[in-house]
Amino acid sequence: MQKEKGEVSSKYERIDGIKKTSGKSIYVHDLKLPRMLYGKILRSSYAHALIKKIDTSKAKSIKGVVSVITAKDISCNPIGVYGEQPVLKGDRVRCFKDEVAAVAAVTPQLAEEACRSIRVEYEPLQTVFDPFESLQPNSPRLHEHAPNNRVPGSYEFKVGDPEREIRKTEYLAEGTYRIPASAYGLLEPSCIVADFDADGKLTVWCASQTPYLLRNAISRCTGIPGHKIRIIQTDIAGGFGRNFELMPYEIIAILLAKNSGRPVKLAYTMEEEFASSPVRQSMVIKMATGCNREGLLSVVKCEVTLDSGAYTSSAFATPQFMLLGIASLYKIPNIYFRCRSVYTNNPPAGVFWGFGNTQGLFALEQQIDELAKKIGIDPVTFRTINLVKAGTTTPQDVKISSCGLRECIERATQKISIDRRKTQWEGVGIACGIHVGGGARVHRSDGGGAIVSIDDFGGVTIITGATETGTGTTTSIAIIASRELGIPIEKIKVLNADTDMGIWDTGNFAARTTFVVGNAVLEACKKLKLKLCEHASELMGCSSETVELRNGNAVCIDNPEKCIPLDRIVRNAHLRCGGTIFTEYAYYDPPSQALSKEMLGNISATYSFSTHAVRVKVDPLTGKVKILKFVAVYDVGKVIDRKNLDSLVSGAINQGLGYALTEKLEFDKGKIVTRGFNDYHVMKASQMPEEIEIHYIETEDSLGPHGAKGASEIAIVPVPAAVANAIADAIGRRITSLPITPRKILEAIKWG
Amino acid sequence: MQKEKGEVSSKYERIDGIKKTSGKSIYVHDLKLPRMLYGKILRSSYAHALIKKIDTSKAKSIKGVVSVITAKDISCNPIGVYGEQPVLKGDRVRCFKDEVAAVAAVTPQLAEEACRSIRVEYEPLQTVFDPFESLQPNSPRLHEHAPNNRVPGSYEFKVGDPEREIRKTEYLAEGTYRIPASAYGLLEPSCIVADFDADGKLTVWCASQTPYLLRNAISRCTGIPGHKIRIIQTDIAGGFGRNFELMPYEIIAILLAKNSGRPVKLAYTMEEEFASSPVRQSMVIKMATGCNREGLLSVVKCEVTLDSGAYTSSAFATPQFMLLGIASLYKIPNIYFRCRSVYTNNPPAGVFWGFGNTQGLFALEQQIDELAKKIGIDPVTFRTINLVKAGTTTPQDVKISSCGLRECIERATQKISIDRRKTQWEGVGIACGIHVGGGARVHRSDGGGAIVSIDDFGGVTIITGATETGTGTTTSIAIIASRELGIPIEKIKVLNADTDMGIWDTGNFAARTTFVVGNAVLEACKKLKLKLCEHASELMGCSSETVELRNGNAVCIDNPEKCIPLDRIVRNAHLRCGGTIFTEYAYYDPPSQALSKEMLGNISATYSFSTHAVRVKVDPLTGKVKILKFVAVYDVGKVIDRKNLDSLVSGAINQGLGYALTEKLEFDKGKIVTRGFNDYHVMKASQMPEEIEIHYIETEDSLGPHGAKGASEIAIVPVPAAVANAIADAIGRRITSLPITPRKILEAIKWG
Repeated sequence: MQKEKGEVSSKYERIDGIKKTSGKSIYVHDLKLPRMLYGKILRSSYAHALIKKIDTSKAKSIKGVVSVITAKDISCNPIGVYGEQPVLKGDRVRCFKDEVAAVAAVTPQLAEEACRSIRVEYEPLQTVFDPFESLQPNSPRLHEHAPNNRVPGSYEFKVGDPEREIRKTEYLAEGTYRIPASAYGLLEPSCIVADFDADGKLTVWCASQTPYLLRNAISRCTGIPGHKIRIIQTDIAGGFGRNFELMPYEIIAILLAKNSGRPVKLAYTMEEEFASSPVRQSMVIKMATGCNREGLLSVVKCEVTLDSGAYTSSAFATPQFMLLGIASLYKIPNIYFRCRSVYTNNPPAGVFWGFGNTQGLFALEQQIDELAKKIGIDPVTFRTINLVKAGTTTPQDVKISSCGLRECIERATQKISIDRRKTQWEGVGIACGIHVGGGARVHRSDGGGAIVSIDDFGGVTIITGATETGTGTTTSIAIIASRELGIPIEKIKVLNADTDMGIWDTGNFAARTTFVVGNAVLEACKKLKLKLCEHASELMGCSSETVELRNGNAVCIDNPEKCIPLDRIVRNAHLRCGGTIFTEYAYYDPPSQALSKEMLGNISATYSFSTHAVRVKVDPLTGKVKILKFVAVYDVGKVIDRKNLDSLVSGAINQGLGYALTEKLEFDKGKIVTRGFNDYHVMKASQMPEEIEIHYIETEDSLGPHGAKGASEIAIVPVPAAVANAIADAIGRRITSLPITPRKILEAIKWG
Repeated sequence: MQKEKGEVSSKYERIDGIKKTSGKSIYVHDLKLPRMLYGKILRSSYAHALIKKIDTSKAKSIKGVVSVITAKDISCNPIGVYGEQPVLKGDRVRCFKDEVAAVAAVTPQLAEEACRSIRVEYEPLQTVFDPFESLQPNSPRLHEHAPNNRVPGSYEFKVGDPEREIRKTEYLAEGTYRIPASAYGLLEPSCIVADFDADGKLTVWCASQTPYLLRNAISRCTGIPGHKIRIIQTDIAGGFGRNFELMPYEIIAILLAKNSGRPVKLAYTMEEEFASSPVRQSMVIKMATGCNREGLLSVVKCEVTLDSGAYTSSAFATPQFMLLGIASLYKIPNIYFRCRSVYTNNPPAGVFWGFGNTQGLFALEQQIDELAKKIGIDPVTFRTINLVKAGTTTPQDVKISSCGLRECIERATQKISIDRRKTQWEGVGIACGIHVGGGARVHRSDGGGAIVSIDDFGGVTIITGATETGTGTTTSIAIIASRELGIPIEKIKVLNADTDMGIWDTGNFAARTTFVVGNAVLEACKKLKLKLCEHASELMGCSSETVELRNGNAVCIDNPEKCIPLDRIVRNAHLRCGGTIFTEYAYYDPPSQALSKEMLGNISATYSFSTHAVRVKVDPLTGKVKILKFVAVYDVGKVIDRKNLDSLVSGAINQGLGYALTEKLEFDKGKIVTRGFNDYHVMKASQMPEEIEIHYIETEDSLGPHGAKGASEIAIVPVPAAVANAIADAIGRRITSLPITPRKILEAIKWG
C-alpha cells in the first residue's frame, strides 16, 4: 500500500496469520465429538400457509435416525423482538425459510433423507412481498400484534423545524433511494455443535460474534439457567453481523441434542446458507436535504421503510446507526428522521455491518453532491464548510471528541487528483462517513474484560470474551499488550472466547473490540507493569520509577547496564515461599449512553471518520464501470496495526463495491433463488480498482487504548455513496438504487 | 458410615459425580482430533544389551505408517534426575521397558504391525536385578556417572547420638523389612494426545497431575519454549503418582506429532501399562528402635536401600516423606536415617502416594508394638506417652501447629473395642501416622492460584491449575466457595486445568490441593464477598458490614426483610455504563521450607494425623486373613466434605489393604510378567472388611481454608502397619515383608 511520508508504518504480522493461511484453523465445521449426530431442518414449502398436519412416521422409521422433532415435541420460548417467531413452526409458516421439523441422524445424508420423507399438509394463504403493499388494509396480516403489518414501535428523531425549513429553503435536493436485500456472502456457512453433559449443562461450539449475549438468549429461549450454558468459540471465518444473534437453527440443534442425549452438529450447506440465512434488509429511503445560499446545510428530512421480512431481529435497530451519518456528519440545524419496519412474507432481515449507516449515506452523500452542484460550490468545499469538528455536540447529543475529517477530505481529494482532467465518461466522486469508534451502547452493558498473565518463560496469555471474526482484533489486542509490557508480540497469545472464563464482553460489533477490550487489556497490563517494575527495582537495586520494560527486559533508565529479562523477574517472584504470580484482570465499560426514546444520546465514547474518493470510467456501450482508482482516508485515532487495518479496509472496499455494483439476491415470490457464489456476484479480484490507496489521519483519542478508535465499520460505510457520486459525475445522471448495474447505467444514459 | 454424635455430617454431593458415574466423562482416551494418528512404541527385548543396529525400512514401507523414529531421528534432552535416560535408546537398553523405536500410523493396528516389523540387533550384556548385588564390585555397571551402581547423592539425617543410644538402650526392637515392587493399578492406562499448531505451538492433552511442572519438563526436554506449550487436562481416572512427572512415552508422542505434522495419540493397552509403566519402588528397610524403662522412646536408626531400577525419577526423593513418619510422629531424641538408591536392570521406579511414609511406618509401627510388648505396656498407652503434640517442633524442624492424634488413638481403640475378648487366631492391631497437610515444598513453588467469577445468573466459575484425579478436590474447592459466597454448590463449576489460563498450581500431590488451592479460592471469594456486600448495601440502603450472603441472597442482618438475590446485584453492577464484573483472583503459597541438605526444615505449613485399628481373624489351615473390622480415625483439621472424604478413605483402605495383603508384581529376570488385573490382585469387594468405621477428630487449623488440612495421603499411610500388627497379635509372630500372604502366614505359624 502507498504510504505518505510520516504516516504510520506496518510493524506486525497477524498472530493468527499462519494458522489461517495454512489451513490449521479449527472451525466449528471441523469439530467431531464422540457419538455426535448430524442435524437437518425441514423448511416451509410456502411463503405463507397454515400447517394442517405433519407426518414424521416415515422419518422416524429410518435406521440411523435418532431424533425427529416438530413444534409439538418442544417447549421453548419464541424469538424475535416481539417474540413472534417460534423456533419450530407448528400452525403457520410465514416465509420459505421457516423451520417445520428437524432430524438428528448418524450421518448428514440420513438426516437429509429423513427430512425429505416428512409429509406436511399446508393450506396456502395470501402472500405479500412488498412492504408498501403490506401496509395496505387489504393485505394478509402476518402477526396478531401487528395490525396492517407495521412492526410496532418506530424510530423517530426531530430537531428544529424541518417542515418549515423544507418549505423555505433555497436549495433542495430530493430523492427516493431503493436498497434491495443482499447476502452476507460468508465463506463459512452457518454451523453449530451442541452437547449436554451428565448434569444437564449445555455446551455450544459456534462462530458467535456475541458469545455472552448468545448465552443470555439461549437461556431466555430454552429456560436453561444461564450458568448452565457454556459457549465456546471456534475459529471464525467472518461475521459481518450474521453471527450477531440467536437464530432458530441454533436452538433446533440444542433441542435435538437434548432429545437424543447425544452431541448434535447442525451445519448448513452453501445452498441452504443462501436460501435460509437472514438477509441484509431491503429498504426505501425518502430523503430531502436543503441548504442556504451560503452553502450551509439547513435541513434534512428522511423517511425510511424497512422490510423486516416475516419476523423481527436486531436489524429492527438499524435506524440507531443510520441516523448517525444523517444527523452527525454535518452540522444541520433542522432534522427529521423516521424509520418504520414492515412485516412481509420475505425471509427475515438480519443485522449487517455498517448497520444502516452505509445505506443512509448512500442517500445523503448523493444529495450533498446535488446541492453543491445546484449552488455552484465544488463538492469538496461544500462538505468542508459543513463538517462537524472536534468539540462539537451534535443535535443527536453525539459528542465529537476527536475528528480528523477535514484532513481526510484534503488527503483524499489530493490523492484522487480531483482537478486532473477527466476524459469522457470518466468521473470522480467523494463521500464521507462517521461511525461509532468507542463502542456502542445498544445493550445495557458495553463492557469487556481481560485477564492477562505472564508465565515463567516471559510469555503472555490474554483471556478475554472478545471475538476474532477475521478483523484482526486478536492481533490489535496483542499489540497493545506488547507495547505496554515491552514483550515481543511473538510471545503473546490471545485465547478464543469461552463464556466459562467469566470474562464478559458484549460482543464483536460496532467496531468496539479494539477500543473496549483494548482498554481492558491495557489496564491489566498497566497493573502487571507496575508489579514487574517493583520486583525489578528490588532485584536491580534502583527505584521502580526508573525501570522501563523493553524488548522482554526490565532496564534501569538511569543505568542501562542494569537489565534483567522479564522471565527471570517472574520466576524470582514466583518460585519461592510466599511467591506470587503475574496475573491481573481489568474490565472496561465506556462512558456512553443508550439512545433515549427520542433517539438522543452519546451512543459511543468516541467516533471515527473517513473519506473515500473514487475515479471511475463508464463504458457507454455496455454500461460497465471500471474503477480506475480508489482512495480511502481514515481517522481512526492512533493506528494500532497498519498492515492489518490496510487488509481490513481492502476487504471493506471489496464488499462495499460489491454492494454498490454487483451484489443482489434474486427472489421469486419470497423465495431466494440465488443458490451460491455462482449466481451471487461478489467483486472478483479482476473487477477491483486498478489502484487503491489507503491513508490514515492519526488523531489521538484521549479515551482510546494508546489513542486508538474503532476502525472496522467506518471502512465500509461511505463506499456505495462515493461510487454513486463518481458514476453520476461520469454520466451526468443519478442512479438512486443499488446495485448500480450496467443495465441501470445504460437506461440512465439512454434517457439522459 | 457410622458417625459419632457431634461429628461432622455429609452435606454435599460430588460435583463431578453424575458425569463420572454416567460415563459422560471425557478421558484423554476419548479424544479424537481431525487427521489424528496413533502412536506405538517398540521396547527392548533384553533387560540389558547394546543396540547394534535398528532396521526400520520395512516399517516405513507399510501403507498407513506416517512416521517411524529412532534415537537417530530425534534431538532432545534425556530425562531422569541425572539426565541418564534418553527418551529413545540409541546404543544401549537397560531394562525391558526401554523405548527403542516408535511409529505413528493411521490406525493403532498398523502402528503395532509396523513396530513388530522393526528389526533390532542386540548384544546382550550381564544383568543385575538385586540392589545389594548391584552394589558389588563385579556387577555390571549401568551408568557412567554411577560407579558401583549407587545413585549419586543420598538422604541422611542425624540428631543426638543414635549409635551410643542403640548400644546403651534398655529395650530394643530390630528388624529388616522387605517391600517388593507394586503397580499403580489404575483403571486408565497411560495416554497422551499431542498436536502442533501452525506456529509451532504444542498442545498436549493428558491426565497429568502436575500440568505446570509437565510444561516445564517438556520444555527442558524438547527445547520448545515453555510459553509455546499448552497442557490441557482431560477428566482423569486416578493418579496415585503415576501422572506426577514426565515419562518418555509423552515425549515420544510429541516427537511423532512434530515429525508427522499431525496430531498423535499414544495410548497404552492395559498389558503395556503393567509391563512398562513405573513401579512403586521396592525397598529394604533395616530399622532398630529403642526406649527406656519408663517407656519413652530414645532412639531410632533406619537404613533404607531403594531399588531405583534402570533410571531415576522423582521417586529418588521418597526419603523426604519416609523420614517424616520416622522422626516426627513420636518424640525421639536420637535419630539416624539414611537412604540410598541403587540402579538395577529392573524397570524404573516412580512416585506413589504415601511417598515412602507408608513403608517407613510399616517398619516403625511394628517395632513400637514390639517395644511395648517387651516393656509390658499396652501398645495404646505406649504410643500415647510418646506422641508429638500441637506446639512441638520436632528434631526435623517440623512444626506441629495442630494435632488431634491423642484423640484419634482414643477413638480408634474405643471403636475397635480393643479390650474385647478375642477368639483364637483373632488379633487387633493399631498404627498411627503423620503426613503433610499444608502442602509440601518439594518444588521451589508450592503455590496455587484461582480466578473466581460470578456471572449474571448468580453462577460461579472457578478457574485454577488444580487437578482432580478423583480425590474430590474439585468438590472441596466448590464447597469452600459455596460457604464463603453463600451460593448453593449446584451453581458452582470448577474447570479442568489448562496451562494457558496462566493460573499456576504446583500440582496434585502431597494432599496439597484443598489446602493450597482452597486457600487461593477462599481469598478470591473473600474479595468477591466484599464487593458483593458493598453493592448490596447500596441497593438495600444499609451499611455493608451488616450484609450477609446466604443461600444465593444478600441479607441485611439488622433487617432480614431486606434481601436481594446475588444475581440481581451482579446484573445491577454490570449492566450499566461504567459497569463492573465480579471476577477476582488470588494466589497462595504456604509458609513452609524446602528440606536442607541435612533434611531439616518445616516442609509443610501443617500436618495431618491418623490412627487405624484393625481386627483380623487368621485361618490357621489356609493362612488366609479375614478383616473383621477396620476403624480409621483422622485429624485432617476441619472436614470440608465428609461424604467425599469417607469415599476417599475407603479407597485408601482398599489400596492399603491390597498393599498389605495381596498386591505384588511378578518379575522374571527384570521382566514384569504380571499382565493385568487377572494376575495383579487388588482387593476385591468380597475381601474388604466386614465393617469399616471412619471418624474425624476435628482440629481447627489456623492456616487451613475454613480450618481444613490436607486429607488424602494420611488415609493410606498407616494401613499396612495396622494390618501387620493385627496379624502379629493373632498368630504371635511378626511378618516383616509385604504382601503378607497366606503362604508367609502358614510359614510363620509353622515355625512359630
